[in-house]
Amino acid sequence: MTDKDSIIKPWGGRFTQPTDAFVEAFTASVNFDKRLYAHDIQGSIAHARMLAHVGVIANEECESIVETLQTIKDEIEQGTFHWDVALEDVHMNIESRLIALIGDIGKKLHTGRSRNDQVATDIRLYLREEIHAIKEQLLRLQTNIVDLAEKHFATIMPGFTHLQTAQPITFGHHMLAWFEMLKRDHDRLCDCLQRVDCLPLGAAALAGTSYPIDRQYTAELLGFTQVAENSLDAVSDRDFAIEFISCCSLNMMHLSRFSEELIMWSSAQFDFIELGDSFCTGSSIMPQKKNPDVPELIRGKTGRIYGHLTAMLTLMKGQPLAYNKDNQEDKEPLFDAIDNVKACLRVFADLMPEISVKQDKMRQAAKSGFSTATDLADYLVRKGVAFRDAHEIVGKAVHKGITEHKDLAEMSLKELKSFSQVIDKDVFDVLTLEGSVSARDHFGGTAPKQVKKAVARARQWLSKVQK
Amino acid sequence: MTDKDSIIKPWGGRFTQPTDAFVEAFTASVNFDKRLYAHDIQGSIAHARMLAHVGVIANEECESIVETLQTIKDEIEQGTFHWDVALEDVHMNIESRLIALIGDIGKKLHTGRSRNDQVATDIRLYLREEIHAIKEQLLRLQTNIVDLAEKHFATIMPGFTHLQTAQPITFGHHMLAWFEMLKRDHDRLCDCLQRVDCLPLGAAALAGTSYPIDRQYTAELLGFTQVAENSLDAVSDRDFAIEFISCCSLNMMHLSRFSEELIMWSSAQFDFIELGDSFCTGSSIMPQKKNPDVPELIRGKTGRIYGHLTAMLTLMKGQPLAYNKDNQEDKEPLFDAIDNVKACLRVFADLMPEISVKQDKMRQAAKSGFSTATDLADYLVRKGVAFRDAHEIVGKAVHKGITEHKDLAEMSLKELKSFSQVIDKDVFDVLTLEGSVSARDHFGGTAPKQVKKAVARARQWLSKVQK
Amino acid sequence: MTDKDSIIKPWGGRFTQPTDAFVEAFTASVNFDKRLYAHDIQGSIAHARMLAHVGVIANEECESIVETLQTIKDEIEQGTFHWDVALEDVHMNIESRLIALIGDIGKKLHTGRSRNDQVATDIRLYLREEIHAIKEQLLRLQTNIVDLAEKHFATIMPGFTHLQTAQPITFGHHMLAWFEMLKRDHDRLCDCLQRVDCLPLGAAALAGTSYPIDRQYTAELLGFTQVAENSLDAVSDRDFAIEFISCCSLNMMHLSRFSEELIMWSSAQFDFIELGDSFCTGSSIMPQKKNPDVPELIRGKTGRIYGHLTAMLTLMKGQPLAYNKDNQEDKEPLFDAIDNVKACLRVFADLMPEISVKQDKMRQAAKSGFSTATDLADYLVRKGVAFRDAHEIVGKAVHKGITEHKDLAEMSLKELKSFSQVIDKDVFDVLTLEGSVSARDHFGGTAPKQVKKAVARARQWLSKVQK
Amino acid sequence: MTDKDSIIKPWGGRFTQPTDAFVEAFTASVNFDKRLYAHDIQGSIAHARMLAHVGVIANEECESIVETLQTIKDEIEQGTFHWDVALEDVHMNIESRLIALIGDIGKKLHTGRSRNDQVATDIRLYLREEIHAIKEQLLRLQTNIVDLAEKHFATIMPGFTHLQTAQPITFGHHMLAWFEMLKRDHDRLCDCLQRVDCLPLGAAALAGTSYPIDRQYTAELLGFTQVAENSLDAVSDRDFAIEFISCCSLNMMHLSRFSEELIMWSSAQFDFIELGDSFCTGSSIMPQKKNPDVPELIRGKTGRIYGHLTAMLTLMKGQPLAYNKDNQEDKEPLFDAIDNVKACLRVFADLMPEISVKQDKMRQAAKSGFSTATDLADYLVRKGVAFRDAHEIVGKAVHKGITEHKDLAEMSLKELKSFSQVIDKDVFDVLTLEGSVSARDHFGGTAPKQVKKAVARARQWLSKVQK
Repeated sequence: MTDKDSIIKPWGGRFTQPTDAFVEAFTASVNFDKRLYAHDIQGSIAHARMLAHVGVIANEECESIVETLQTIKDEIEQGTFHWDVALEDVHMNIESRLIALIGDIGKKLHTGRSRNDQVATDIRLYLREEIHAIKEQLLRLQTNIVDLAEKHFATIMPGFTHLQTAQPITFGHHMLAWFEMLKRDHDRLCDCLQRVDCLPLGAAALAGTSYPIDRQYTAELLGFTQVAENSLDAVSDRDFAIEFISCCSLNMMHLSRFSEELIMWSSAQFDFIELGDSFCTGSSIMPQKKNPDVPELIRGKTGRIYGHLTAMLTLMKGQPLAYNKDNQEDKEPLFDAIDNVKACLRVFADLMPEISVKQDKMRQAAKSGFSTATDLADYLVRKGVAFRDAHEIVGKAVHKGITEHKDLAEMSLKELKSFSQVIDKDVFDVLTLEGSVSARDHFGGTAPKQVKKAVARARQWLSKVQK
Repeated sequence: MTDKDSIIKPWGGRFTQPTDAFVEAFTASVNFDKRLYAHDIQGSIAHARMLAHVGVIANEECESIVETLQTIKDEIEQGTFHWDVALEDVHMNIESRLIALIGDIGKKLHTGRSRNDQVATDIRLYLREEIHAIKEQLLRLQTNIVDLAEKHFATIMPGFTHLQTAQPITFGHHMLAWFEMLKRDHDRLCDCLQRVDCLPLGAAALAGTSYPIDRQYTAELLGFTQVAENSLDAVSDRDFAIEFISCCSLNMMHLSRFSEELIMWSSAQFDFIELGDSFCTGSSIMPQKKNPDVPELIRGKTGRIYGHLTAMLTLMKGQPLAYNKDNQEDKEPLFDAIDNVKACLRVFADLMPEISVKQDKMRQAAKSGFSTATDLADYLVRKGVAFRDAHEIVGKAVHKGITEHKDLAEMSLKELKSFSQVIDKDVFDVLTLEGSVSARDHFGGTAPKQVKKAVARARQWLSKVQK
Repeated sequence: MTDKDSIIKPWGGRFTQPTDAFVEAFTASVNFDKRLYAHDIQGSIAHARMLAHVGVIANEECESIVETLQTIKDEIEQGTFHWDVALEDVHMNIESRLIALIGDIGKKLHTGRSRNDQVATDIRLYLREEIHAIKEQLLRLQTNIVDLAEKHFATIMPGFTHLQTAQPITFGHHMLAWFEMLKRDHDRLCDCLQRVDCLPLGAAALAGTSYPIDRQYTAELLGFTQVAENSLDAVSDRDFAIEFISCCSLNMMHLSRFSEELIMWSSAQFDFIELGDSFCTGSSIMPQKKNPDVPELIRGKTGRIYGHLTAMLTLMKGQPLAYNKDNQEDKEPLFDAIDNVKACLRVFADLMPEISVKQDKMRQAAKSGFSTATDLADYLVRKGVAFRDAHEIVGKAVHKGITEHKDLAEMSLKELKSFSQVIDKDVFDVLTLEGSVSARDHFGGTAPKQVKKAVARARQWLSKVQK
Repeated sequence: MTDKDSIIKPWGGRFTQPTDAFVEAFTASVNFDKRLYAHDIQGSIAHARMLAHVGVIANEECESIVETLQTIKDEIEQGTFHWDVALEDVHMNIESRLIALIGDIGKKLHTGRSRNDQVATDIRLYLREEIHAIKEQLLRLQTNIVDLAEKHFATIMPGFTHLQTAQPITFGHHMLAWFEMLKRDHDRLCDCLQRVDCLPLGAAALAGTSYPIDRQYTAELLGFTQVAENSLDAVSDRDFAIEFISCCSLNMMHLSRFSEELIMWSSAQFDFIELGDSFCTGSSIMPQKKNPDVPELIRGKTGRIYGHLTAMLTLMKGQPLAYNKDNQEDKEPLFDAIDNVKACLRVFADLMPEISVKQDKMRQAAKSGFSTATDLADYLVRKGVAFRDAHEIVGKAVHKGITEHKDLAEMSLKELKSFSQVIDKDVFDVLTLEGSVSARDHFGGTAPKQVKKAVARARQWLSKVQK
């Protein structure tokens, strides 16, 4: 398409030496920024329409530019477009083709803009679309979690703190903890989106342009609700990308915690769940293995996203205004974060219905480990013992239980009474698993009744945000 | 106050060996979490009132607890309180003193709560207050920036991209770029605050409690607008702290960029500004030095805040639910981030009025470096030359200028015409600095007229958010 | 000691405005760098001796300075020294006191040096000492691990990959994996030490000094084996601190992995070990809990050290030469890394002998999970089946085992033969746990015989490096 | 080459459901790990030879395997090899092709190894080679720096601290500061290489193998000087990759600082150097611009490498032994770090000879800014004034100089004497730039004589390490 020898760099005028070939490849971005082609063309079309609207170019010129850009988009999508590293980036590759196709008219497209505001616009258009795609996967995952929670609103498992058996909880309640984390992730993405949703175009290189541009008009064409207030800031701002990767980091942190639990629960020792075969792989040397590859890989990918956050924050540290070439390094971390978070959410959503819950194993685990010790303490308090004293009484009972290998519910009333005379036979009601979970019957508690209510609230929220 | 030998750990019942002294110091948090004392007491008072409200404790008991907690607060503030590492944390130190003062009634305070939900509540109360304090400093800095921008709405300086002279801009416009960055910082803090503003108390250890608690009531007493929906999430969630430090990181990134410019502008080579003596220090060996210590130190502190973000994200990675001791490590990074960001903003706000702008030096710098080359290109376009061709013509003119050491405005009409016959004597209007900046007269542009409008919008925003 | 009103800053001469009080506190470092007092005095004494050696000061002046510095050191250690924030840092506090005590002679100490090379020297002296202290704790931990490994050279436990039971291994072998990691940590610290061990003094502010100094002499007095080759580099280099924190990060990563296992092994589900009571705490609400606080806290502290690494790398990014005030921010991360790593290693070393190994539980776990499936595959290969085919045969046997709830060793010969006719009754030798581990009898393998050899090599290494 | 429908996963035996297509793509690594093909084949050949050496396979089988592996290598290099995502990774793709070509014999290659030790071996072989390639570029850059330093051993420029003119220095001396930093980078890479240089093969999945393998023999064939001591550690250790990326981070930090100076020095305000056109690009909107793109991009890439370090440290945090799927995420950061650091060093080395030093501008800058103030202070001290007093005298002289716009060398003897009577006409010798730099005539100082000596030492070091 372009003959390399004849390429005239857009900025070649004052230069006397040719660009070194290795340097050319080193500084070019087209290999990764060509991903932005559709948004670059979308932005250029809006820019051309605005130029025609204010009379800087003629309507026919505008139409010619718009049509040809659409042709170029087709060429790219059909794989017939020739990308050239010598043309540095996606912007120059497309503009160069435009000029090749329609000559002097094509040269008018860049009037009143610069690659600095152009690329900032492209990234925002692209990211806006991807945030919507990520939110979709997030909500799908949340929906699948709620389904699982509803199914297991009364399934009893041990609740852990410090990975020690603490108190019995319901599996549905546990699932809804993940729902809550993802809800915050959703809300953070929505907040971030507001700051993505702002048009930089019109800032030109850094100071604005002397053409009578109408930025509000461009913003409307592109569906931006805000126009960047300051041209220097508009071309150098990458806050929105960092904020987005920060949202991704929190989301991946949540998935890493969820993954950690799925991995542990899949171990022979916990044996609380089994993951669908499709989400596991085997071992080349140990035929009996069924490895929870998907959650492990997702846990591993957490570091990758944290790394991108570090990269972007470091990138921007100490940069003077306005645009510097350093900023070219913003794209790869951003693209990789988008790809990986989207894929992790999708595969996690797919995984949810493939989790088989081993209710018997969970129940068995909840029964041991003195998980109802707190219930005994609360029982004592209701009988008039001060909380701190009750705690000590139960501590002694547990110590005996450990020594004699029996759970509290397995002790006789006489044994229990030896720790406190206020204990009576009604104590056995609170020492059962069902008694324990049902008693936590307040907003946010683990009682099956509360889980059902929480599921209803979750479904309501989902239907609200999906509107 | 407490006799170390007689300390009975709240969890001592089932243990047979004493805690090792080094381990005790290693695991204790009181040395840094005592900073939360006022919020711990605030939370305990609300909890006591709620317990009385639902009838778990008597009103007189509640009053006794509340009064004694206020006495303890006084003791702490007057420096007569004895902090004991053997009592682990701020919570146990205060509760232990409460019990020492009012005996069995004091033991009832911990009914229906755990240290897990207690500490989560304390941090949220504390952070909520500190975010307000940070926002105050942020707005003060923004106000001082707007003052400077208004004063210099028409002061001309060179605008840089790639640290090369690009186009003339106004100093006021440059200042408002910083205003915009800080505006986003403000908005992010407000968004974060919504997620801080949520009551975890009532989650107890992880599963809720069997007491008939009224969490909505506690939330109202503490001024929280939301109640945490899931007890497991409530005790293990530290998103709000990470999100806050992420906001701080972006804010420090902005200050690092601002600092970089202040440092460069203070160099003998730029010489655009002079910082007030109070914000500089000298050298122990070179008596002529006036070092821009404050911006340098702030630039340096950026790494510290980024580091805390890394620390917190790493801390939470892969933790299974619910609370784990790891989380104790959340406090020091959070506290240090708060202290440093608040101090940096305060000192930066103080610095603003102490910046002397050297208008002559800025103007002189803007005049050289072919800063109006873009204006010549735009002139050519208006005369009918295609943008890309105009760019090449100007490139050749600049090349001649560099060779012959003369700026474009210093060339004769004949010389200029040699590059393009469309150039006429009106070209000299666009080659002046004033002509150049005034021409960028659209929303977000650098024209003095636009800076004035932007200042007005900024003042309106400030008055709105400060209400 | 010093009257604040009369303090004359070392660089006060050309300044007209006083330093703002908040700025003074903001920029002062004495609150954290006073920790360097002993090394500052050590460096100053060597500097004074060198100045006398080359004749810049008289011998009597030198003696007076040296004696007074020792007096000051005593004052500091006895707590009678008055630290003054107005004097900025540890250097000026000490020098100011020196001058107060011996007048004009004291003023001569700073001849031919600057605070830039002085602080670089102090940190290196300090860090050199601390690296030795850290290595001592590291070796103690390694020794305790080897003791444990030796005791359990033949104790069988399940080995995991993907947290799935893979093959039986020996507990001693597992312990020695940790030994290997710490060995690399040790070696990295030794390599780092070589780069710490270099004298910056003599670089003065940045360019060297016009006094006829003898840097080699100073280096000998301070026990440095190298003298910094370039003065600009000498004052701005912080590589050694970053490299050290990088070593610490790897070390903490290892401890985090070790901690993760201790926590899991302490859970009711694994139940492989019990940690000594002194290293655990209980719960304020759940009396039965025994929380593995120490490993949890260490796992949490990993993030803190990673954060310091991020902080230091960010700090140095993009700083022009030579010294900038940013560098003052190097100390707190460094000091905190030292303190925490040293404490973590110490408490981990203390913990080792307090680990009770539950051999029955480990053995029971190893017996299930088809841990000898690989042995069956290897058996088949030895009988002439190709590895990949053997793998598939065993896969089918395992599938049957899962379906029928029996381990491979529990199947009859007839059942086993149904998968491959080459299987004979000698198969039962390889399906036992002892048979399996003993078969891995090569350098680095898990066989008890190999563990004994590895223990011997480990002890030899320990005795070599401790010499 | 392989028919997707007929692919039998190496671990397919016990699985009943097929792998989901999206999950397959999500978990596959072949798209990035195929880069290891040559090292995978190299390792497999050595493994086959060792198996033959100990008699596990026949010599003819070995030869058949070795030859076919070489054929496969050719296929890959000629682009005729079909990579299949369904075969997961580079290892299975190659082995699968081997079996397709030679059937049952090919199936014997995997005897006594696992993908866990195989991949660990591949990465070490690959990284060892790349470290050598990086060291080569590093030494080339250092050589070019020394050339520049030698040429400018006496070129005078201002030395900066706090970006304020401090003292005159020589440009050659400044260049050698960079040489020193890179020397440490070199030494760190050498230290890291020692820990890369260790054979994991033979660890098999985690515990070693029951075949009578000879790991020492394999190590010799592959040129490893050490054999991994512990099989569990061998498969899970990624320290060497983290240490390598840590070395890269320090190296990039150095390049970022160098870049920062090149960018500033290229600004119109400093104007100390001009970079060759080949290393700069222009602006699409401002024809006069010559942007120092290469150093800017390198400064930007610093964040990328720091990010990879964060990613890898996070990845390994808290992973239990032995191998987990998380580790698959180690490759992309490692590969990207290698590629970028190698490219940055190469382009930086190319850039060195293309730096034009503007000696007049540097000299002019050194003359202003009271850069010889320290020399005046030292002069006073030599005349008997105490250092701290001399500092104050010079401070007053500088204050007068600033007020009256004259440098110290421009003041009359009378004016100078008004500050101190000890000043005499010989003062003018020390106030010249040449006098100042020549006076710093000690090991590590900026005197031209010392720069020449340092250049000689540098060349000696280069010739030593390149041997």
